[in-house]
Amino acid sequence: MEGIFLFLAATTTDIEPADSSLVLAAVLLSLTVIYFASKLGGELCLRINLPPVLGELLGGVIIGVSALKLLIFPSGGAGVDDSLIMSFLQATSSLTPEAGAGVFTAASEVISVLSELGVIILLFEIGLESNLQELIKVGPQAAVVAVVGVAAPFLAGTLGLVYLFGLPVIPAVFAGAALTATSIGITAKVLAEIDRLSSTEGQIIIGAAVLDDILGIIVLAVVASLVKTGEVQISQVVYLIISASAFVVGAIALGRFLGPFYVKLVNGMKTRGQLLLVSLIFAFVLAYIAQVIQLEAILGSFAAGLVLAETEKRSQLEEQVIPVADIFVPIFFVCVGAKTDLGVLNPAIPSNREGLIIASFLIVVAIVGKVITGFTVFGKENINRLAVGVGMIPRGEVGLVFAGVGSASGALSPSTNAAIIMMVILTTFLAPPLLRVVFKEQNVDVKPQAKIPE
Amino acid sequence: MEGIFLFLAATTTDIEPADSSLVLAAVLLSLTVIYFASKLGGELCLRINLPPVLGELLGGVIIGVSALKLLIFPSGGAGVDDSLIMSFLQATSSLTPEAGAGVFTAASEVISVLSELGVIILLFEIGLESNLQELIKVGPQAAVVAVVGVAAPFLAGTLGLVYLFGLPVIPAVFAGAALTATSIGITAKVLAEIDRLSSTEGQIIIGAAVLDDILGIIVLAVVASLVKTGEVQISQVVYLIISASAFVVGAIALGRFLGPFYVKLVNGMKTRGQLLLVSLIFAFVLAYIAQVIQLEAILGSFAAGLVLAETEKRSQLEEQVIPVADIFVPIFFVCVGAKTDLGVLNPAIPSNREGLIIASFLIVVAIVGKVITGFTVFGKENINRLAVGVGMIPRGEVGLVFAGVGSASGALSPSTNAAIIMMVILTTFLAPPLLRVVFKEQNVDVKPQAKIPE
Repeated sequence: MEGIFLFLAATTTDIEPADSSLVLAAVLLSLTVIYFASKLGGELCLRINLPPVLGELLGGVIIGVSALKLLIFPSGGAGVDDSLIMSFLQATSSLTPEAGAGVFTAASEVISVLSELGVIILLFEIGLESNLQELIKVGPQAAVVAVVGVAAPFLAGTLGLVYLFGLPVIPAVFAGAALTATSIGITAKVLAEIDRLSSTEGQIIIGAAVLDDILGIIVLAVVASLVKTGEVQISQVVYLIISASAFVVGAIALGRFLGPFYVKLVNGMKTRGQLLLVSLIFAFVLAYIAQVIQLEAILGSFAAGLVLAETEKRSQLEEQVIPVADIFVPIFFVCVGAKTDLGVLNPAIPSNREGLIIASFLIVVAIVGKVITGFTVFGKENINRLAVGVGMIPRGEVGLVFAGVGSASGALSPSTNAAIIMMVILTTFLAPPLLRVVFKEQNVDVKPQAKIPE
Repeated sequence: MEGIFLFLAATTTDIEPADSSLVLAAVLLSLTVIYFASKLGGELCLRINLPPVLGELLGGVIIGVSALKLLIFPSGGAGVDDSLIMSFLQATSSLTPEAGAGVFTAASEVISVLSELGVIILLFEIGLESNLQELIKVGPQAAVVAVVGVAAPFLAGTLGLVYLFGLPVIPAVFAGAALTATSIGITAKVLAEIDRLSSTEGQIIIGAAVLDDILGIIVLAVVASLVKTGEVQISQVVYLIISASAFVVGAIALGRFLGPFYVKLVNGMKTRGQLLLVSLIFAFVLAYIAQVIQLEAILGSFAAGLVLAETEKRSQLEEQVIPVADIFVPIFFVCVGAKTDLGVLNPAIPSNREGLIIASFLIVVAIVGKVITGFTVFGKENINRLAVGVGMIPRGEVGLVFAGVGSASGALSPSTNAAIIMMVILTTFLAPPLLRVVFKEQNVDVKPQAKIPE
């Protein structure tokens, strides 16, 4: 309450923007803490054989509102006095308590936008690594796996939450949408680790995960737009599916048309960073268009990545995007973790039990809804169907995108939001060991030479 | 006035932060315009044989307050209605005029911080490219050139402005400080273009420019701190020189001590981007310390770059910093240009003539003050002394850093600020053609094979 009072006082008396050198200091301090948490969490997770992205999320949880309260945001109702970073800044700099609220608000705004740029750049990179041709090669099997893997968990999750748990439609649809994601990054990484990336199962999983990325983003755009209007209208759904599809198809068609011009333009330019900046201009323009036509900015950057992946500049661009993604993407994951109040999942408090029960339900649907997809694979003999389904389980960064967008939209109750994060964490945790188990169980004839280090 | 009224209304009635999706849209639009202006300006300048960085500045001038008014900032007294980007956003999105002021303030804050991160990363990169050993090799000649090249223009500029033009001490000191800079980037690039980088003259120029970078940043830190306290106190000057020197020396000593630990840490880490993020944590911590002990954040990142340049990770890190610098640094140059109101240099308005006269004086001091340094070179026969002096003329990005910090501090009158920018632009424009002339004049025995393309 005191924080809110200070904030009121600051906004009414200080019309001048907050002291920019102190805002910069607060941002530098926040970035330092974010990077530290992301690397510490990532390295620790990697060492116990879990995906580093989970560590970044957990690092965020630890420095965020659930634990240390180093990195907190005003949107959660917190004031400047709740933030340890702001207290540290007041102790070490010339920041006065009166100016603190303005600096806190401004620095939080900057970190939030950096985090949103992080997910825009992440989806640009995922688009760049995706390959429409690859999907065509692994054929109709991957398409069926992807569609069933989106439809089954979405329907089971949404209907279950509405009819079994009595949730309103909007949060139920959001939770259902979060269940549709598949993390292409985590899946591909685990398959590479167990040397199964080029197996038939591996190819189907990767193909389906690529398609799932596209379907998932359209689902997310549809759901996010529904949340904004506040109700489910069939015409609205149809409009959004058409506009999302038209946007992606239009962007790809436009990109193919402009592709040769883009390559010629970049080749003709001689200043430093020309490839990266021309590509980012394209990504930001599409992200802006997607944002203002009520879709999500990430859909635009993903489409831009897909389009530029088709040009001869792909590998060169991928190389240059990596360091940029390395510094922006962790801000997103750590902020998602930091904004998650895991306190609502504390079973000691009776009112929290609802969140835990929702989480348990979501986790069961998340696993069963993806595992069954393996058994839809047709026309292939001697295939490890269980492994295909298990390969689709991890929600990873894509699931976190859903959780982050849902949380930012304000449509989710804290317990539903925390339940989704819990589902993402658990599916991502469980998939790597599970994949190893199911691959070993049915395929005992692993070639010994595959294990010799190259 | 209407803009200010709206801003007042928005801050008193809307306690909630501005709609984050519209702030993101405004930031995406601003970044698109910034990147477009930087590349268009850079490419055009390169084609007429001028440094691209000048083009970025001029691109900023064109999209900024002086011309198109696409990218403007509230700090200049402008309101949301003056910004073409905000008008475009209102026309294409759901942004209402009432919410416009809040979105404008928040997006401008984000762009300003991104621009400050840009100069922090630029100085980190310059530090990384600098080499303390190199300086020792070219010996005392480079040191004398650097010291004279800082002292002569600073004293002549400051004293001239105070006694000939009657300026107050603070802006005179700031303008004098801006005269001390030498752009190592532009100088090195021009020397490489005319194949003189490894000549004795070239080595002295580069060595002196490296030292000049360090001296210039200390001068800038001293001056910026003086501006904050509002008066020139000898004890304050001594304290600042000592703390700046102690900071740089301490950072380097600490860096040498921690260097092996840093290399071991980075080698031991296995997650993506570990080298870049550990290095940026180091740079941001030093930048934060420099910022809160009343120096400038850029001094910290420069020291971090110098220190990490001494480790075996240098070339790998340099490679990864390039794309990051490519996307951050143009934001700084374009914003410096966009914030510069060249209108005050319009000679048609009588009250503007003061700025033009100051600019002419600064340009003469800027050129003469550096050209004389060549004649301080001792113990070397058959040396092109004029070329050494001319090589020190371009102020480039370092001069713009001074202008930007001066402008942000509020100590400079618009005419003095514009005069400094004018001086930076002209010295940077003039140096490349001048360098070619003086090198050709005295050294007619250019080896013909040096001109054959490799």
